[in-house]
Order: sequence, then C-alpha cells, then structure tokens
Amino acid sequence: MKLNKQIHQWLNSHRAEGIALLTQLVQTESTQGNEAQAQKIVLHELKKLGLEIDMWEPDGQRLKQHSFFASPRTNFSGSPNLVGVLKGSGGGRSIILNGHIDVVPSGELEQWEQAPFSAHINEGRLYGRGATDMKGGNVALILAMKALQALNIQLKGDVIFESVIEEESGGAGTLAAIVRGYKADAALIPEPTNMKIFPKQQGSMWFRLHIKGRSAHGGTRYQGVCAIEKSLLVLNHIKELEKKRNERITDILYHDIPIPVPINIGKIEGGEWPSSVADLVKVEGRMGVAPDEPLEVAKEEMKKWLVQLEKVDPWFIKHPVKLEWFGARWLPGAIDINHPLMTILARNYEEVIQKSPVIEASPWGTDGGLLSSVGETPTIVFGPGVTEKAHYPNEYIDLDRVFETAEIIALTLIDWCEEKEQL
Amino acid sequence: MKLNKQIHQWLNSHRAEGIALLTQLVQTESTQGNEAQAQKIVLHELKKLGLEIDMWEPDGQRLKQHSFFASPRTNFSGSPNLVGVLKGSGGGRSIILNGHIDVVPSGELEQWEQAPFSAHINEGRLYGRGATDMKGGNVALILAMKALQALNIQLKGDVIFESVIEEESGGAGTLAAIVRGYKADAALIPEPTNMKIFPKQQGSMWFRLHIKGRSAHGGTRYQGVCAIEKSLLVLNHIKELEKKRNERITDILYHDIPIPVPINIGKIEGGEWPSSVADLVKVEGRMGVAPDEPLEVAKEEMKKWLVQLEKVDPWFIKHPVKLEWFGARWLPGAIDINHPLMTILARNYEEVIQKSPVIEASPWGTDGGLLSSVGETPTIVFGPGVTEKAHYPNEYIDLDRVFETAEIIALTLIDWCEEKEQL
Repeated sequence: MKLNKQIHQWLNSHRAEGIALLTQLVQTESTQGNEAQAQKIVLHELKKLGLEIDMWEPDGQRLKQHSFFASPRTNFSGSPNLVGVLKGSGGGRSIILNGHIDVVPSGELEQWEQAPFSAHINEGRLYGRGATDMKGGNVALILAMKALQALNIQLKGDVIFESVIEEESGGAGTLAAIVRGYKADAALIPEPTNMKIFPKQQGSMWFRLHIKGRSAHGGTRYQGVCAIEKSLLVLNHIKELEKKRNERITDILYHDIPIPVPINIGKIEGGEWPSSVADLVKVEGRMGVAPDEPLEVAKEEMKKWLVQLEKVDPWFIKHPVKLEWFGARWLPGAIDINHPLMTILARNYEEVIQKSPVIEASPWGTDGGLLSSVGETPTIVFGPGVTEKAHYPNEYIDLDRVFETAEIIALTLIDWCEEKEQL
Repeated sequence: MKLNKQIHQWLNSHRAEGIALLTQLVQTESTQGNEAQAQKIVLHELKKLGLEIDMWEPDGQRLKQHSFFASPRTNFSGSPNLVGVLKGSGGGRSIILNGHIDVVPSGELEQWEQAPFSAHINEGRLYGRGATDMKGGNVALILAMKALQALNIQLKGDVIFESVIEEESGGAGTLAAIVRGYKADAALIPEPTNMKIFPKQQGSMWFRLHIKGRSAHGGTRYQGVCAIEKSLLVLNHIKELEKKRNERITDILYHDIPIPVPINIGKIEGGEWPSSVADLVKVEGRMGVAPDEPLEVAKEEMKKWLVQLEKVDPWFIKHPVKLEWFGARWLPGAIDINHPLMTILARNYEEVIQKSPVIEASPWGTDGGLLSSVGETPTIVFGPGVTEKAHYPNEYIDLDRVFETAEIIALTLIDWCEEKEQL
C-alpha cells in the first residue's frame, strides 16, 4: 500500500487518541506563568516517541542581555521550555517544528457560551482558549511524528520539536531555544492560518502612551483638562497613522487582507476618582510591522506622528504624549517563496486536500521572525487553526483540519528530511 | 471698643496660632480611611474650647439601612466622626457648623510642584491637598469660636460643631451625625466658595457604565469590535446629554457658571492585553443634579438617553451599555434666599469685606443637601477656600480669606444665636 495512504489510514484509526490529547491540553490552562502543567503533558508524549528530551526554565537574567529579548517578565521559573529531538540517520535536511504552549487570557467570561477551558466538542469542533492558537497545531505536529514512527519510517535529517513558552508576549521561549543552540535547515510553525501557507510574517511591537490632562473638581470640570477627552483625540490620530501605513503596502501576499499591518489599541486606563477630572490616561497597544520593515523605522514613524498632535490640539504643545515601547515584540520574517520547503509543502497540501493552497502574508507576528532573523532558520507558518477565532471568546478548531495538517506535515517531513532506504 | 473691632483684633493677634493649626491639619493626610489622626488634632482644639465632645465610629451596617446612605464602604472603623457642642444659655437660635475632614487623593505626584501634604506657605498662600477643600474652612470655624470665647461672649443658642468624614464620597459622616440626633435651626458649611454665599447646592451621583465590544487578535482587529472605540461614541453621547440638561437651567443663581450641572467622566478602564481587541470598557463618572431636581428624575433621564445610543450605532441594539449607580451621592439642597441667616451673613460680609457678597448656586454637592432635606436644618455654604483649586494639584488657600471668614462667622454667630446680656 502506498505510503501516503498508510499515513492517512494510521491517522484515521488513531483519531480518538489525537482528540483525547488535544482535549487534555486545552483543559490545562496555560496562560503566561502557568505553562508547566501543559508542558508535562507534551513531555509525556515526546517520551513515548522516544525523542531526546531537553526541558529547562529559561534564565531571564541572561536572556534579557540579548538585543532581541522582549517580554514583560524576566523570571521564568515555573515556565519551562521543552525540546524533543528525533535523531535522523544522517545526510538529510533538518527541520524545526515549533509551537507555543502559552495561551492568551480568556477575556470576559460572560462572552463565552461555555467555560473557556471546557474543550467540549460540538459538530466536529473542539472549543476552548488555545484550541486554535495553537494547541491544535501542536497536536498535528505530534501526530505527524507518531504516524512516521508507527509506520517505521526512519528519516535522514533531524526533526527538532519545540514546545515553547512566551510566544504571546514576545517570543522569549523561542529566543531561549535559539540561544541554547537549536537551529535547522528550515522551520515550520503551525499557527492558526486556516491552512493557508504564510511565507511572510508581519512583525509587531507593544507600546504605551501617557496622555496628560489637568485635574479639577468634577463639579467645575470646565476648570480642568480631561485626559480622557484628550485621549480620544490621540486614538483618532493613531487611526490615521494606521491608514497611512497600510496604504503603502502593495505586496500581493497582502492583497486580500483588509488591514495588513494594524495598530491595535488593546488597553486603556485613566483617572482616579469619579468626581475629579482625570489628569492622566495610559493606553497600551500593538503596532503591526510589515515583513520588510525594520522595527526602528516603524518606531520612528510613530514617534514623529505623535508630535503632529500639536496641530490637532495646542494642548499637546506643552503636554506632549509620552511614548514607551515595552513588553512584547515580534520580529517580522520571510522565507523565499521558491524555497524548496515551500514547494514540498504546497505539493503535499495539493496531494492531501486536492486543491492548490492559498499563499499569503500573516496578519500577525509569530516566532518565525526570531527563527529566521536570529536563528538563521528560514520559516514557514502553516497550521490548522481558525485565524478568526484566535484570541476570541468561544475559540474553536475544526478537528478534521488538525488531522489533514498532520498528514500534510508527515509527508512534508519525509520529502524534506528524506526517508532512509530500507535495507 | 466695639465688639466687631475686638474680634478683628483678637484674630489678628492670634494669626500665627491659626496658621499653625491649619499647617498641622494639612500635613496630616486624611484621605478616605485615614481620617483618625486629623480628627485627633481637631479633638484637641475642641477640648481646649471646653465643648461637650462626642466622637464615634459610625456603624456602617446600621447606616446602610438608611435610604439616603451612599458610600463605597460600609466599615468605618478607624474613621471617627467628631462633634463638639458649645452650649448656649438658652432662648437663642441654634446653629450647626459643619466641615468635612476627609480629602480626595492627591492625584499624579508629578503635577505637584511640592509634596501634596507639605503645607508650605508662599506669598500668603498655604499649599497642600485639603488646604482649600476644606481644612481652611474648618480652621475658620474653630477660630470664630475661639474669638468669642476669648472675648467672654456667651451665646443663648447652641453652636454644634461637626468635623465629619466621608463628604468626598457621599456624606455618610454627616448622615451619621443626623441619625445620631444632631439638628439645629440652621447650618453653615465653609466649603471652598471663594467667599461667595451659596443658598443652593447642586446634587450629584456617581455612575458606572459597562461598554461591550468583541475580542479578537490585534493583528486581525477588523474581525473584532473594539470596546474602546465604542466607548468614544458613548462619551460623546453623554456630552450631548450634559449640554441638553444645562440648557434647561435658567436659575439666576447659575447665571455666571459655564456648566451649572456638569457630567464628569472621572475614570476609564478597559481591555486586558495590548495584542487583543478590548471586549469591555468600564467608565465611572459624576452626574450633577440641579437644586430643584429629584435624583430619580436625573437617573431616569440618563437611562433613557443611553438607550438612544442605538441610533448612534446599531452595535448598541444587541449590546446596550449597562448603567449602574454606585458609591457616592450628594442630595441637592436649598435655603430660602430671604432666610434670616442669609440676611445676617450677607450683612456681616459687607461689614467685614466692605462690599456686597456674591450670591450664587454651588457647582457641586455638599453635605448641605443631607442637612436640609434629611436633617431638617436649612443650610448655607460659605467658605474661604479657592473653588478652582479644590481637587487640583497645587491646591492652596489664601490665608487672609481664612481670617476674614472667621471674623464674618464670629459676628454671624452673635447675631444668629444672640449674645447673652451681661449682668
């Protein structure tokens, strides 16, 4: 029986096992600082696969010296990174399979139809925070390796599986793996792309704005200057910058994306007392960076743009908005569209799905930026998750996509790392 | 020598003593929950005056049963109320002299030129949080009583001095004094009116709005609904309501006030993560209520107005803004403009200041609302503080105004409570 048929059948007959693993992972909340339990579950799987295991808590003090370190924290105790290596027989191309274990907070509970970590299944969809971003992708990677092993397929090149922390806040986990020495001829990250193939990834950075007002008694508020009202002007001004930046983007891979590099305002906080005029508002957001745009250029543009506020309202002349870059940052990244791994992945996609893949640029940063620019490992992002549901209430993943992706990746590993001739 | 001349001289010769007391009070931070130390200082003064002392921690559990109780807290241990009674010889009109000891938080430190509780003096002004709102007024009351006593002036009517907590968050302190049985023929509150006479006081209430959005990944923010953007619409909508409500106000006493009954947005908070679209924003504010307007009518108008948001943006049809009334609330209040205490106070103002007083309605709520509507004690608000500096950074008071006010109040006590004939 042909190899791809065998892989397809093995995945079919082990569907329940795969779903059970994903259920267990989604039910194990792994928000920032709480990743240990979920990593244990992955560790158990990697041991069953007989991989060479490397599990460690990144040294934040050392890591923060690195010029590409970005994280709101520098203490990672209780937040281990996990790498498992499937040694090849030699002579083949190596690959890094990278997936993050951390998930973003669940948000307002009332917006969830069921508990965020229920992992309940309904009409072929498994629901829960992290199902799509990106535990479903991680399970696809594990299933692909399991299938190859079950079918006694030995590869020439190494397969380096990385289950990393911190992707949702700047990639310190993947950076730690790079610093530890892990690199390969190419990498694949199954982030939620709706099974689109992303050779280019948008970068992004977090920023914080301090918008000043002047306090006064609320009953005579006309004698103060409301920082909350001023912040409305600032947010509208930033909207214009977003428009301006996106009009510049002509890359065909962004053709179908409404806002290629968005500026997202994620958090606002200001004022101390309902009866007082607010004298300070803090705003936190995320600035998207085009795959070919240096972070410093984007920072400079934001800085200059905020100075223009003086024309919007003279208040800002004496009270300029303070801009800070803090916490997370994702490097943009790109792989040559004609890179052999692109060709192999696209071919196997067609083989399994029976149509040609959509090739696009990613609307968000991934650890692919670090892997390609810092880890010298050209990276493709391709995964089963539902892009629209990442960071959403009622996040879910279509289970069929998980198994299709596993099949495509298994075949891709064979073509990329090469099967060792059976003697 | 004429009595008023004697009072004037006594205050002049005891200026240092008065300033020392105000300095001590301002240097003693008495924000909500931290009033005990400042009350001890006042207690010491009242004892020197030989008043009948009544100091107690209000019983929040009992108080909260009262339909006019409004406070963010119900536990007042460590926050004592203080009353001192100067017994009259009988047959005269009684008066309540009411001042609050609590101060609002200092706000952003960087906006203060010197430490908020420094109480430093510069060019006749004493600076610090609470100097104007309203420890300067409290000191004026104490000085007035001291002057009368030093000059052996015995009054027929009782003078009830109240140093209360909680004025800045709904008047639970004054309510506690009313419930304890304190009432009089009239009351005077030396809140910071720039020495204007306020026969009418605006009421106010605190409200909280919950504005919903729908979360999404910041990189595909166009797939979510930003609660922060929606809150901009809500704040503009409320601005219109403020305009509408103020256009209705024709009372001549509000003639020179830019916004008679403002709606102040004091606090905003929303979103969880810079890279996520915010799905909830909470806004807290203070709604001004006209002296003749029932609180319930104002509440109803706000409620109906928020429903109109459906016309501003269909989003609000399925996601209506949630409105809560919480924490503090100040009843509006009014005294007849021709009330005898008004006549006496105005006459003594002219006597001391040598021009006729400005008579206006107050731009904020005071405990005068509770005293008049619940305590059946018609109340005038008149004090030395600088209205514009209340709740402001670099709050200060002009020391001359404190002593002028003390003189006016001393004379007013004599006319109102009547001097006992010397035998």
